[in-house]
Parts: sequence; C-alpha cells; structure tokens
Amino acid sequence: MKVAIIFGSKSDVDVMRGAGKCLKEFNVEYSAHVLSAHRVPEKLEEVLKELEAQGYEVIIAGAGLAAHLPGVIASKTVLPVIGVPIKAAIGGLDSLYSIVQMPKSIPVATVGINNSYNAAMLAVEILSIKYPELKEKLLNYRKTMKENFIRENQEGVEL
Amino acid sequence: MKVAIIFGSKSDVDVMRGAGKCLKEFNVEYSAHVLSAHRVPEKLEEVLKELEAQGYEVIIAGAGLAAHLPGVIASKTVLPVIGVPIKAAIGGLDSLYSIVQMPKSIPVATVGINNSYNAAMLAVEILSIKYPELKEKLLNYRKTMKENFIRENQEGVEL
Amino acid sequence: MKVAIIFGSKSDVDVMRGAGKCLKEFNVEYSAHVLSAHRVPEKLEEVLKELEAQGYEVIIAGAGLAAHLPGVIASKTVLPVIGVPIKAAIGGLDSLYSIVQMPKSIPVATVGINNSYNAAMLAVEILSIKYPELKEKLLNYRKTMKENFIRENQEGVEL
Amino acid sequence: MKVAIIFGSKSDVDVMRGAGKCLKEFNVEYSAHVLSAHRVPEKLEEVLKELEAQGYEVIIAGAGLAAHLPGVIASKTVLPVIGVPIKAAIGGLDSLYSIVQMPKSIPVATVGINNSYNAAMLAVEILSIKYPELKEKLLNYRKTMKENFIRENQEGVEL
Amino acid sequence: MKVAIIFGSKSDVDVMRGAGKCLKEFNVEYSAHVLSAHRVPEKLEEVLKELEAQGYEVIIAGAGLAAHLPGVIASKTVLPVIGVPIKAAIGGLDSLYSIVQMPKSIPVATVGINNSYNAAMLAVEILSIKYPELKEKLLNYRKTMKENFIRENQEGVEL
Amino acid sequence: MKVAIIFGSKSDVDVMRGAGKCLKEFNVEYSAHVLSAHRVPEKLEEVLKELEAQGYEVIIAGAGLAAHLPGVIASKTVLPVIGVPIKAAIGGLDSLYSIVQMPKSIPVATVGINNSYNAAMLAVEILSIKYPELKEKLLNYRKTMKENFIRENQEGVEL
Amino acid sequence: MKVAIIFGSKSDVDVMRGAGKCLKEFNVEYSAHVLSAHRVPEKLEEVLKELEAQGYEVIIAGAGLAAHLPGVIASKTVLPVIGVPIKAAIGGLDSLYSIVQMPKSIPVATVGINNSYNAAMLAVEILSIKYPELKEKLLNYRKTMKENFIRENQEGVEL
Amino acid sequence: MKVAIIFGSKSDVDVMRGAGKCLKEFNVEYSAHVLSAHRVPEKLEEVLKELEAQGYEVIIAGAGLAAHLPGVIASKTVLPVIGVPIKAAIGGLDSLYSIVQMPKSIPVATVGINNSYNAAMLAVEILSIKYPELKEKLLNYRKTMKENFIRENQEGVEL
Repeated sequence: MKVAIIFGSKSDVDVMRGAGKCLKEFNVEYSAHVLSAHRVPEKLEEVLKELEAQGYEVIIAGAGLAAHLPGVIASKTVLPVIGVPIKAAIGGLDSLYSIVQMPKSIPVATVGINNSYNAAMLAVEILSIKYPELKEKLLNYRKTMKENFIRENQEGVEL
Repeated sequence: MKVAIIFGSKSDVDVMRGAGKCLKEFNVEYSAHVLSAHRVPEKLEEVLKELEAQGYEVIIAGAGLAAHLPGVIASKTVLPVIGVPIKAAIGGLDSLYSIVQMPKSIPVATVGINNSYNAAMLAVEILSIKYPELKEKLLNYRKTMKENFIRENQEGVEL
Repeated sequence: MKVAIIFGSKSDVDVMRGAGKCLKEFNVEYSAHVLSAHRVPEKLEEVLKELEAQGYEVIIAGAGLAAHLPGVIASKTVLPVIGVPIKAAIGGLDSLYSIVQMPKSIPVATVGINNSYNAAMLAVEILSIKYPELKEKLLNYRKTMKENFIRENQEGVEL
Repeated sequence: MKVAIIFGSKSDVDVMRGAGKCLKEFNVEYSAHVLSAHRVPEKLEEVLKELEAQGYEVIIAGAGLAAHLPGVIASKTVLPVIGVPIKAAIGGLDSLYSIVQMPKSIPVATVGINNSYNAAMLAVEILSIKYPELKEKLLNYRKTMKENFIRENQEGVEL
Repeated sequence: MKVAIIFGSKSDVDVMRGAGKCLKEFNVEYSAHVLSAHRVPEKLEEVLKELEAQGYEVIIAGAGLAAHLPGVIASKTVLPVIGVPIKAAIGGLDSLYSIVQMPKSIPVATVGINNSYNAAMLAVEILSIKYPELKEKLLNYRKTMKENFIRENQEGVEL
Repeated sequence: MKVAIIFGSKSDVDVMRGAGKCLKEFNVEYSAHVLSAHRVPEKLEEVLKELEAQGYEVIIAGAGLAAHLPGVIASKTVLPVIGVPIKAAIGGLDSLYSIVQMPKSIPVATVGINNSYNAAMLAVEILSIKYPELKEKLLNYRKTMKENFIRENQEGVEL
Repeated sequence: MKVAIIFGSKSDVDVMRGAGKCLKEFNVEYSAHVLSAHRVPEKLEEVLKELEAQGYEVIIAGAGLAAHLPGVIASKTVLPVIGVPIKAAIGGLDSLYSIVQMPKSIPVATVGINNSYNAAMLAVEILSIKYPELKEKLLNYRKTMKENFIRENQEGVEL
Repeated sequence: MKVAIIFGSKSDVDVMRGAGKCLKEFNVEYSAHVLSAHRVPEKLEEVLKELEAQGYEVIIAGAGLAAHLPGVIASKTVLPVIGVPIKAAIGGLDSLYSIVQMPKSIPVATVGINNSYNAAMLAVEILSIKYPELKEKLLNYRKTMKENFIRENQEGVEL
C-alpha cells in the first residue's frame, strides 16, 4: 500500500505538501520524487519501473505550465495516475487543460488547481477498494470531519 | 468488479456511451443510471446505497452546465468517483470547473470534456490494483494499441 | 421577515459580511450559518427544515471553487435562493459558473463575484413584494443614495 | 400576481419562450414587451411606470452582447429584476458578465445563459413568499418532477 | 474644444488621471464628473444636457464590473463616447465586454483596460478633425515621441 | 467628409458590409480598400498617404486573428482609427485583444466583434462634430430608430 | 534540407496539409509521420533517431487537446521543433497552452491554431539561414505575395 | 552567429534578461535594442536593415498588451522571428494571442509567457543547424542539465 508523489521541481514542495499531509493522516506509506518528463525522461522511466517493482499502486503527479508530467507518466504505466495542476501562469488554466484533456485511452485523474490534498484523498479512496482497513479509516475520517465541522461551527457566526 | 455509470438525462447517452464501450472491452460488469443531484436527491441517495450494498467499487458520473452530480455523489460515498464534464455551454468550461474544483477532502477524479471512454479506462486502472486479471488486460490493451497504431500508420501519410 | 445566510467556512466571513451589513440597514432579521453541502449534507438538510419551520423566507448562500452549496440548497427548498460566487481561484469564474449555470427547474439567483451586499439587497427587494414597509425603505434608500451621491460628488474631482 | 418579461428584440423570442412556458404552467399572469435600454430609454421608463402602477411584482429581462437592459431596469425600479444572459457572441460570456457583475446596491438576479425557463421559475419562487397557493404549486411541481423523473428513467438505460 | 470625463466613483480617480494628464499636454479644456448610470440616472441625464449646451464635443467614460456607464451615455447623446474599461474583477474582462460589445446603432469607442491616457489621445485625434491647431500638435507629439524614444534608448540596453 | 474602410482580405467583405450600409444611410462618402499590414506594408503606407492627401478624415480598419492592421494604421496617421475585431478563431477574442489593448499614445477606437455597422456609426458621430448637417442626421436617425422600434413592437409579442 | 511533419492521428491530415503545401512551394523535401507521444512512445523515439540520422533538420509537430507531442519531441532532440495547436475542444486553447507554455530549457516554436502552413513557412525561414537558395526563394515569395496581393485587390471592393 | 533581441521599453528588461543569460551560456553574440513598432516604425525598419547587413541570423522580439512588435518585424524580414509574450494585463493572454495568431505566410515562433530564456534556447537550436559547434554545446547542455537535475534531487524530498 504505497503511493508515489512525483513533481518537477523542489519549488513545488509547498503546493505538494498537502498530499504528504493527507497520506500521513491515513498512515499510507509514500515517497516523494522530483523528476521531469522533459529534462530527465530516461530517469523518469527508470524510477517508474522501480516504483512498480516495489509495489507502488498509485502515482500522484503535480506540474505547472504546459504540465505534461502526469500524462507522460500515465503513458508509461497502467497504475492509476492522479494529476495536480500547479498554478504558475494564466491562473493555472494552462496546467489544468494540459493535464485533464488527455487523449482517448490514457486518462489522468485530475483534481483541482493546487489541491494536492485531494489528490492524496483520491489515492486513499482508490486503495480502499483493495484494503478494507482504509475503507474503515475513510468512513471514520468523514464521520470525524462532520463532527468537527458541526462542533466548530455550532456557536454560529456573527456577520 | 462492478462499475456504476450515472448521469443526469437520457440526452447524455451519446456522450456517455464511450464509458460502456470501454468497460465491455475489458469485460467489466457495469450498469447505467439516469439520476439527478437536484431533481431526485433522495432517489440518488437510495441508489447509491444499493450500489454500495451490491459491491460496486467505482462510480462514473457525467454532468453538464453547473455539473454538481459527481461532487454530490462523492460527498455521499467513499468509493472513488470519476467525473465526466459534458459540453453543453461555454465550451464545457462550466462543467469542467464545477467538477474538478472540488473543496478539500471530497475529490472527484476528473477526465477530459466529453471523454467518457477515458473515465471507464481510469475505472479499469483503479480496479486493476485489486484484480490482477485486469492488470493483465490493461498491459495487453496497451500492447495491442501500440501494435495497431503502428500497423495502421506504417504506410505513412501523404500531405 | 427573516433571511438566512449560509456559507461553507468561517474563512468566508469577510466576504459575506456585506450581506449582514445591508440587512441591518433595512432592519431585516437574519442569522448566519456555516454549513457545507459536501461535508455535512445531513446537517444542511436539517438546518434548512428548521429555517423553513421558523418562517425564513429567503436564503443567501455563498461558496467558492466548485460552488455547489447554493444549488444544493435550491434543490431542497422552494424558497428563493440567492448565490454569491466567492473568489478563490481562476478569478472566481469557477464559482460563478458553478452557481449560475443551474439546470432547468432549479434556479439560483446569482449576484456578482464577492458581492454579498447585493445578495442582501436582492433579498430585501424580494421581501418587499410582501412587506410594504420594506418597499418604502427601499424607495428611501434609493432616494438617500442619490442625494448622498450627488452631495459627495458635487464639488467635482480634479484629474 | 403578475410578471413582466422584457427583452430587446423580436429575435430573442425563441430564447425567452421558456419563461412564458413556465409561467403558464404555474398559471401566473404575464405580459411580454420588446424594449431597449439604449434605443428607446424613455419608452422603457414609461412602460416600467405603467407596469408598477398595474401591480406587476417581478420583472424578467433578457439581453445579449453588452447586456445592459436588466441592469438599467434594476436602476429604475425596486421590484426584483431577474436577468437572462442571451448567447450572441463569445459563448454568451459578454452577456453573463454584463448582467451579473452589477455594482453595489443595484442587484440583478442572474440565471444561466439562455435559461429563461429558470428565470420564470425563480419569479414563481419569489411570488410564492406572498401567495401561498404558489408555494403549494411549487411543492407539487417538485413532487411531480421527481415522480416523472423516476418513472421515465426506471427502466434504466443501455450504454 | 471641451472634453468631459465621467466615471462612477472617486475611487476611479487613479485610473482616470491619465486622461487628464494627456488633455493637459494638448491644452484641451476638460472637466471631470463623478456620475453613475444606475445610482443617479436623472442627474446623469441632466449633466449630459448641460455638457451639450456648453459645447462639449467628446465624452470619455470609465467604468468597472458590469460597466454600463459608457453605453448608457452613448444612448443619450450623439457625441462620440469613448469607453475606458476599469479593472475591478476577472482581470477587467467584465468591464471590457460590457463596454465594447454594444448593440447595433449605439457604439462606444473602446480603448484598453485602464488606459485612460489613450482615451484622451483618441479624443484629441477626434477633435483634430475640426481644429487644425490640434492636428499640428498631434504631429508634433508624434515627432517628439519618436525623438525622445530614440534619444532615451540610443545607448542601448544591457541584458 | 470621407471615410476609408480598410481590411485584410476579400473574404472579410461580408463582415465589413455593415460599415458601407451605415455610411450610405448617412450619405457619407467612403471607399473600401483591401490591404494588409504584414503582406503589403509599403502599399499600406502609400495608400494612407493618398487618403490623407485626399482629405479622408476617419479610417475604419477590420482584422481577424492577431489583428494588427488597425494598430499599424494608427501608428502611421493621427486621423482617428476605428477597429473592428473580425471573428476567425477563439470566438474573436484574439482579434479583440489585439486591437483594443494598444500601448500608450497610439489608441484604436474599438467596437464590438464583427460590428462594422457600429464602426461606421462612430465615424459619423466623429464627423458630426465638424459637420453640423451630420449632427442633424444623427438626431433624426435616433428619432426614427425610436419611432420604428416602438411602432414595430407596439402590438406586443406572444411568448 | 529535410523537414519531418509528425502528428497524432490520420484525422489530423486535413489540418496538417497546409504544411505539406507550403514545403512543396519551396521545394523542400519532407515526410509525414503519424505518431503519438502517449500511445507509441518507444516508436516515437525510434523514428526521431532515424530522422536525425537521415539528416532531418526541423520537426513540425501538430497535436490537439492536452497536446504533449511537440513538447515530448522537443525533449528528445535538439533540432528546432515547431508546434501546431490543433483545434479539438475549448476553441483550441487547451492545445495552444499545452504547446506554448513549455518549461525553461525545452522550447517549442508555437504557431497559430490550425495554422500548419505557417509552421512550414517558419521551417523554411529557419533552414534559409543555412541554405542561401531558400533565402532567395523566401524573398521572391514575399515579392510575389505582394504583387499578387496588389493585383488581386487593385480594382477595389464594393461594400 | 548573432542574435538580435528587440523589445518595446526599458521596463521590459527584467523579463527579457533571461534571453541574454541563455545566449551568454552558449557564447552566442547578441545585442539588445529598445524599439517600438508603433512609436518609431521608421527607426525599427532602419535597425532591421542594419541587423541584416551585419549578418544577424535570428531575431527575438518581446512585447506586451496588443503585442504587435514580433509580427511587424516578421513582416519586414525573412529571418526567423521568435516572439516572447510579456505579461502586462489579462494574465498575458492579450500578448500571447497577438503574437501567436499571425496570418498565413508571416509566422512568428512563439514561446511561453515571459519565457525569454526559452526564446534564446530556440534561437540557439535554430543556429545549431548551421553551426555544428552549437549542436555540440546543446547536446552537452542537455547532458549537464540531466546530470545536475539528478544530482540536485538525488537525496529526495520530504513532504
């Protein structure tokens, strides 16, 4: 039950930290990798093979601008690939379109702009099909989320 | 190993047919349901409970305009939900943004505008983590896709 | 003559304060509620029933990103629902499209991005159909607005 | 209990017909007027005064391009004004922005692009605050809508 | 030879100052007026009549959001009206579309977002058709602009 | 009292015909020229000089895609230049932005996408500052427009 | 002096034909290849190596949707890569952004949406640096283009 | 082996510095020129002739807003012209569209918004067709880029 998080530059760490936070909450093992589809394509391919050999089951990939990384990864593995559009220009629309509009047969599961937390949550949901303990945790998470939400807001707000 | 395909109107059948086509190719059992988050919310909730009870493991949801259906489903289940933005206005951007920009904790795995085939392919990839026979089929699919692509295009094209 | 103001997070208070300000100016009773269509759907439904039972007549709902809250509320009540798109990403266009492009039969009365003051003004106009004293106040408001505008700007400006 | 429907050209009749259809379903009296904020501003003002004198309580206004009509009407009455962005260019975004982004104090209740049916539905919801028989009809409408939706779709669909 | 500059709020002074600067450079008389199409429509009409009576020949109007002011002015005068879209939301696109997409017969001469200087330059060009001394000044302005541009940049730049 | 209409290709005739129609209505002399800023820059410059020598007083320029023609003309004359964005791709937004967003000092008076009729109307308004007979005609045009509008729509419409 | 034209599907032939047309006009040798960055990445790499070995000097790549092909090619060669965004959805903006917004160090020379003719013209300009006979032809092309333009339009147009 | 870098204002130096940086890395001679298509068209033409006479082989042109500079240069030379859209408004989309959407026959090789470094890299790739030593350097650059990328990221990152 391992998730790989891949992104193109150390400067993306702040945006991608949400993914790590979420996976820790669910106690899912993960590793983070700085790799680039265009700068080190061979290294990317090599790492992907290692990850598959090591039993990684879901890949999260974050990228900005003409964000090819998630799609290139998706073309090299049949593991589910989750794409995080990182906002760098044009409000993040270039990244979003470059990730979500993949051609027939090679999908990328796209989440919201900069929303790496949701990418990890989606990874947990995907893994929970196979690992019943995660399903339990997800149901608890939702239950706790609701309770917290209600408790934190029960005193109402002043406008 | 069952996938549910849900969308808001019989008029969406043409766009969503791609999902059925792909799941047939992989011999994955599926059922299609016309349901609406806003017109029959109670019925939607009821059907979702039945689907979970019957062992469905992934949900594909297609919607146009202010496309709330995938997100509303995602808020009522911890199964992975895959969203298909259906183009009805503004080039499909209203649907895309309404599906992909989900708030923290409730992700929808979004694919390209009108690309229901890819939604199903993603469902197969997700299921393949648990069902090794699907992984085999996916690898074969990719192999055949490559062989076909090369054979069909080996004579080159005239411009 | 009561208006409910609902939004998804305490962090929206700054944007939504304009609604409270306007309702105070017209001496219309209101209450504010932090609720989420996706995180606490049952609580939302429960509160909506209470609000209806207590004679609330208009609902203002603010939301950002894939802003489903106003539409989900509109699907659960026949009270008029006024939606405020909150700017969180893509200049607020995701929120705007997610709120305004509702499907046939379930409208949301959408106002400008972050413009909660206008949402409340619209609520007052709606209530004024039934409550003649509000109509009087609205006509006075417009009259005063004009007088103030003219007085404040009568000395002209230097460019 | 009367609704006025105003739009700028006979060529808009096809888009605006949905409003008439909905109001007939609810047996709400209405009249349609072709008027222009820019071509016949005095006539517009004259008609608005007559409508108010005759007891009209809600105004629906449809417009395309730089769609000023709903906003100009809103500046001349304190009746609730519902705006329908009509698609004529740029996917209807020019109309949408010109209607929804009204400045502080003069709101327009905006519905989806070309969605005049929803404008009328919103008018009915607004009137129902004052006229309990309309509230009854709205609840019946929703009930019937649900029953029809379920009946029409109970046989499922083939993909 | 007089130009009127009209805009909706004292807070627009910073953007509109460029118009005053340019008109001073050409020694064209002008006056600035804070007026609103929606808040003080009668006052606006009154001022426009006075401006016409006093021999004003071009009107510059700046507005943000659903920027109706230039178009409303254009509907009430046959003087050329120059519109300045002021950036307040959505990158100024709402203002731009609301000003430039005027319907047939009532044009607004639109310049770039926040570019009030160019609005005044256009006013000078328009007036120069009638006032030959302005044509002379324009030709000199262009000549000086070129000379200055060349002189200021003749030493080249280091990159 | 002469207006030149310039555009880049015979295929633009259909869009630009509106300008000719309007100028005929006002009995303003005009000539149409197919010229290109990029294909025949020298010819363009030559024609512009001739037009100025012959007493032309306003230039209308229509262009699509990266629509440089109006701006290039504006840089070579101090006559007022009116730009018509022609829709060829991206809904005409490329043309609109390329025409309206001119840098400081070289304005183009931009009208709506494909709206060549309004370009000519603006030209007439500009000329009317100098030629009182045109002012008279404009006031008559507006008067007739109003009368026609009211007469054509006095029987109301059925929805 | 050879140019390779690569695109993802036989269905793109109509858009890409312009490139062939232009290269024929300049008598530049070229070959066309249907290849996909995501479906046959190994084949793509193999073909690119062959093209380099055979002395190809410029590559034109056309792609639609999340158009990764030009960027992936650019990452695997130091030959200049010219990208043609093919319009398939969202007016071609997804393709345009996916091609032009390449990260630092791996540029793609992007031309207009569907404008494969210009891609080839750019290839000819690039080659002309090395091959003086092409420079001659380019100067002649421009000269002929001007002469033709002027001759075809010398009789003027009627509006 | 000389590259000219042209842009419209000293205020663009910060954006354009990346081009100088890259050309220095490859030891390619270059000069920078502040010129404007609209303010000093004759000077621009004069400088372009000098650059051609002095053996310059590629031109990089950066511009913002209605960014005509690269296209105007491309119309006056058959040297390859590389355009850099500079972000000044609307997220840089006005510049991007004004540069990339050039009409048939006059291409501009467009790179990403503000990405002058890539413009220079593209210039080096273009020159490398003729100058084998540059090809060598490019291959080394890529090799070093890969090695550096791998070394800098080999320790992994913490999320």
